[in-house]
Amino acid sequence: MTRDTDLIVQAQTRHFDTMLSLQFGSQLNGFDLAFETYGSLNQAASNAILICHALSANHHAAGYHTSESSKPGWWDICIGPGKVIDTNKFFVVCSNNLGGCHGSTGPISINPDTNRRFGADFPVVTVKDWVSAQKLLAESLGISCWAAVVGGSLGGMQAMQWAIDYPEQARHACVIASAPKLSAQNIAFNEIARQAILSDPDYLGGAYAEADVAPTRGLRLARMLGHVTYQSDDGMREKFGRELKSGDLSEGQNVEFQVESYLRYQGTSFSKSFDANTYILMTRALDYFDPAHAFENDLAATLADTQCSFFVAAFTTDWRFSPQRSKEIVDALVSAKKNVVSTLIETPFGHDAFLLPIERYLETFGAYMQTIEI
Amino acid sequence: MTRDTDLIVQAQTRHFDTMLSLQFGSQLNGFDLAFETYGSLNQAASNAILICHALSANHHAAGYHTSESSKPGWWDICIGPGKVIDTNKFFVVCSNNLGGCHGSTGPISINPDTNRRFGADFPVVTVKDWVSAQKLLAESLGISCWAAVVGGSLGGMQAMQWAIDYPEQARHACVIASAPKLSAQNIAFNEIARQAILSDPDYLGGAYAEADVAPTRGLRLARMLGHVTYQSDDGMREKFGRELKSGDLSEGQNVEFQVESYLRYQGTSFSKSFDANTYILMTRALDYFDPAHAFENDLAATLADTQCSFFVAAFTTDWRFSPQRSKEIVDALVSAKKNVVSTLIETPFGHDAFLLPIERYLETFGAYMQTIEI
Repeated sequence: MTRDTDLIVQAQTRHFDTMLSLQFGSQLNGFDLAFETYGSLNQAASNAILICHALSANHHAAGYHTSESSKPGWWDICIGPGKVIDTNKFFVVCSNNLGGCHGSTGPISINPDTNRRFGADFPVVTVKDWVSAQKLLAESLGISCWAAVVGGSLGGMQAMQWAIDYPEQARHACVIASAPKLSAQNIAFNEIARQAILSDPDYLGGAYAEADVAPTRGLRLARMLGHVTYQSDDGMREKFGRELKSGDLSEGQNVEFQVESYLRYQGTSFSKSFDANTYILMTRALDYFDPAHAFENDLAATLADTQCSFFVAAFTTDWRFSPQRSKEIVDALVSAKKNVVSTLIETPFGHDAFLLPIERYLETFGAYMQTIEI
Repeated sequence: MTRDTDLIVQAQTRHFDTMLSLQFGSQLNGFDLAFETYGSLNQAASNAILICHALSANHHAAGYHTSESSKPGWWDICIGPGKVIDTNKFFVVCSNNLGGCHGSTGPISINPDTNRRFGADFPVVTVKDWVSAQKLLAESLGISCWAAVVGGSLGGMQAMQWAIDYPEQARHACVIASAPKLSAQNIAFNEIARQAILSDPDYLGGAYAEADVAPTRGLRLARMLGHVTYQSDDGMREKFGRELKSGDLSEGQNVEFQVESYLRYQGTSFSKSFDANTYILMTRALDYFDPAHAFENDLAATLADTQCSFFVAAFTTDWRFSPQRSKEIVDALVSAKKNVVSTLIETPFGHDAFLLPIERYLETFGAYMQTIEI
């Protein structure tokens, strides 16, 4: 397949020579951020949008890397000319989170202090640290204030954190399918995923890359589990039901349900392309995110100094971050007398819905983005 | 602690010399069933209740094994003198399912044909096979008709199967926190549990016992995952919240949430006491259970020839087998013009609620049991 050359994008990497002090006390002695941009920054630098990715995604949010690529960036349905985040209007930036495994400094990078890979010694990073790193990227791109910071799931948490930490440097925050903090059930699923990785004999205390192996069994299980939590019971019933991939249920020989085969395929393919230490880091960042913790669990007080307008979207069948969790954010914003537009989208597609072309979602989200002045 | 001697129970084992033909075509050349009984069989043998256990339980449903035991049987809250299933009135029988690992013939048993453990070669068993085996046990105990067959979760499926397969041999069926078949999401969770076990290097194709090892890492993950699905988001929030077991969330060092520590403990302790091949077998039996499959997915037609009365109970926050799944059973029974009493119990405790002393549940269930004539 040959693509319009406009849709071909190239990743960039920026090195920061800064000593970055992390939330939990460690420091990074310089770091790289991989990122992509779409559209053009206007002269006033007033049309820049920051896209924040979720757990397992990266900076390749839109377009294609080559004219032969079969898969576009992870949010291509939303980002592009004439799309919800219209690149004819906006200059869109998406960076790989610090600690990631797609070009930004992370566990697979060489630690300049030891000349060996960081591995499990990579410091704990938090949503707040990601925002600090993104802030340096913004400065280096000449952006002093984002028109909007936008993200789904863990990305939505980054949008919230931007609004809290840099109230004058984002005019809008779009918080989609997100939550103000994880529930015990959310943490439990993350912990099972981590234990799957940590108990894989090939994890080797995190130093697997040095030994040229990888805990793919554990990572595969972690991803299979993630997948189930991203989808709804209804959505899976609609997509797979009890359909068989092979065998015959009346004979019981070699019976394989479609959903089993699908999950194994997803797990195996992910386990070959993602770093296990990064997966552990990202799930920890999710668990630790709790901006209201420093405000005696008062979310309205936490958001009191924010200045941006908010767009908060939730999906009816999302049980990972249910509509109730978005409502907590909206209620806190209302109680703090902030501008907020909120929407609840009817869909069977669970948490994954934020990545899917659902008409009502794209319309509502698009309408909000159109109100943003540049 | 010293117990009243009335509460001390002893497990029994009965050997059956029968050639048992299994649903999917294999045969077992003789087998053992481990079981316990509570109360006394009356002369007419009209007061016998069969208790069917769920995935990971066994025949030890009530009382204590020794006067020093600290833990009673798994359904002791329901079974005993003056309790819901009153042993002053009923003679209660509970057997370990075929394929189990607590005394009934299963993967850890010696295959008489090879003089080696069955291991992964143990034939696939189904809910229907369990019922066939329980039927032989009933005959050997002189019970030609159960006053009731009772079970929660997978046990409820056995109660349904009894009503379908032996309509004249059970006067009541109590189907608690159960479902007419698994959903794609249910199967998905089971498949992740199985993959955790199968991908443990110590699984050794199922022949781990011969090598004197065990896939405890995989079994531990399987159990952790099971546990999360047995509890509700609300229940876990109430029980654990985001409380820390150790560390300090503002410093991020050695942070361990209570829920993580709890899950690891549960997983580790289970992995030392349960057989991995049995776990795989039991989850497969769950996945394959689908009595309406042979009736073109018409559950009312499936239940058309049943003759017993039904008690169907569901719990509001059970998302493993949600109230909607019980409603499917009730709707089919109503449509087939059967006697059915159904109840929905308000509780935060999810699927596990069927094992817990919830007042309204015990009252409703007890009231039903009192209507049973002997």
